[in-house]
Amino acid sequence: MHFSENSAEASRPFLTWQRIIDWGHTHYRDRIFRKDERVPARPGLLYLVNKGAIRLVGAAQSSIVNFDDGESSEPPSDLPEEAFLGFVDAGQPFEIVAQSPFNLQAYAHVDRTEVVWMYWHDLDNWPHFRKEVYESFRYQHQRKLLWLSALGQRRTIERLMNFLTLLIEEYGEPCENGYCLPYLLTHAQIGSAIGSTRVTVTRLMGKLRRQGLISIQEDNLICMPHWETAKNYKEK
Amino acid sequence: MHFSENSAEASRPFLTWQRIIDWGHTHYRDRIFRKDERVPARPGLLYLVNKGAIRLVGAAQSSIVNFDDGESSEPPSDLPEEAFLGFVDAGQPFEIVAQSPFNLQAYAHVDRTEVVWMYWHDLDNWPHFRKEVYESFRYQHQRKLLWLSALGQRRTIERLMNFLTLLIEEYGEPCENGYCLPYLLTHAQIGSAIGSTRVTVTRLMGKLRRQGLISIQEDNLICMPHWETAKNYKEK
Repeated sequence: MHFSENSAEASRPFLTWQRIIDWGHTHYRDRIFRKDERVPARPGLLYLVNKGAIRLVGAAQSSIVNFDDGESSEPPSDLPEEAFLGFVDAGQPFEIVAQSPFNLQAYAHVDRTEVVWMYWHDLDNWPHFRKEVYESFRYQHQRKLLWLSALGQRRTIERLMNFLTLLIEEYGEPCENGYCLPYLLTHAQIGSAIGSTRVTVTRLMGKLRRQGLISIQEDNLICMPHWETAKNYKEK
Repeated sequence: MHFSENSAEASRPFLTWQRIIDWGHTHYRDRIFRKDERVPARPGLLYLVNKGAIRLVGAAQSSIVNFDDGESSEPPSDLPEEAFLGFVDAGQPFEIVAQSPFNLQAYAHVDRTEVVWMYWHDLDNWPHFRKEVYESFRYQHQRKLLWLSALGQRRTIERLMNFLTLLIEEYGEPCENGYCLPYLLTHAQIGSAIGSTRVTVTRLMGKLRRQGLISIQEDNLICMPHWETAKNYKEK
């Protein structure tokens, strides 16, 4: 995200961001989180990720445990299912407002994730910055529409492939073999995003690897080794 | 959405909205669409729904037809699957920006849906209105996070029940038997939203009806007759 507060800073957006982070330090509105530590985000506050990355998660307030769809091979779980909803990386804002019937929550996805927070009305001091925040949410909204498109696909392998494509399109970094998702995701987390199970994701990831559509780096990061090929594949 | 452009209009937001609609009429920036007619929305333009309702849809640019997950009972479809992504009702803005690997599209969901459009820079004339548009997208983004939470549920019946709950929570109107979704949705459209099929949705809707969790009005609208009960049910 780019920030600009006056004409001098407009050409150097880093200055405004840094000024707001400094403001956060001065006003004790910053905190560093350990990997997988929950950020106690509250409605009405705006959060800025200065370092690291945030993982957004939605948890059903409690499972509808009595449903029996007559076909599921697994018993309903007593634990609330947490769904992975995406990343917010450094330089981006997030907020947690909507709740029912799910609790949205934010976790530090990597160690030493630094978050600064403020009230929305603090933004009155930085009107151009507020616009940048709005623009970021506008962008995030459009990305979520694409996610929903992916999750509407009927076949699990299509949901999985489209989900990975969207993640790497948004967060991917160039690597030796194409583009690489810089964040670790467990198969259970992927399953929680696409409405599937860890076991199924493991099986289908194996299939995608054998087809050469994805590869896994030594550090377990997911890559799309033939990015262009994958795109062409879909354009067939 | 509430609009306010100056202090006099701030207390009567309808005035600003009406003024912008009038501006649209004057500048030939309005059009009335038939039910299921596509709105030819382009990136960079902002659309306001003045009457009726818009249905957002995501279509895979083309299906990944060669995948075989080894368990699907249905053959891969040659037709691109369109996923239902939600409604935009009167008084709300929408836009279509993001594309790859899905085409987002907008359709009139009801007959005589009226849409006014403008360039984003036209909003320079109405800074407060622009803020309201941003606030609406901020809200829509939060709602989509809830949708993603619903679609991450592993069991189809839970995805279905949470999906319907979210829709009725957002758009529901009081009726004799609780709250009613004022828009028709086919079982195929519901299936396209929750990653399932028309056949499965029909079967599971029957189950939810027999359990008394939903009811269907004579005009085929979906109701939650025991809204509070449904909520309590989840809070068990």
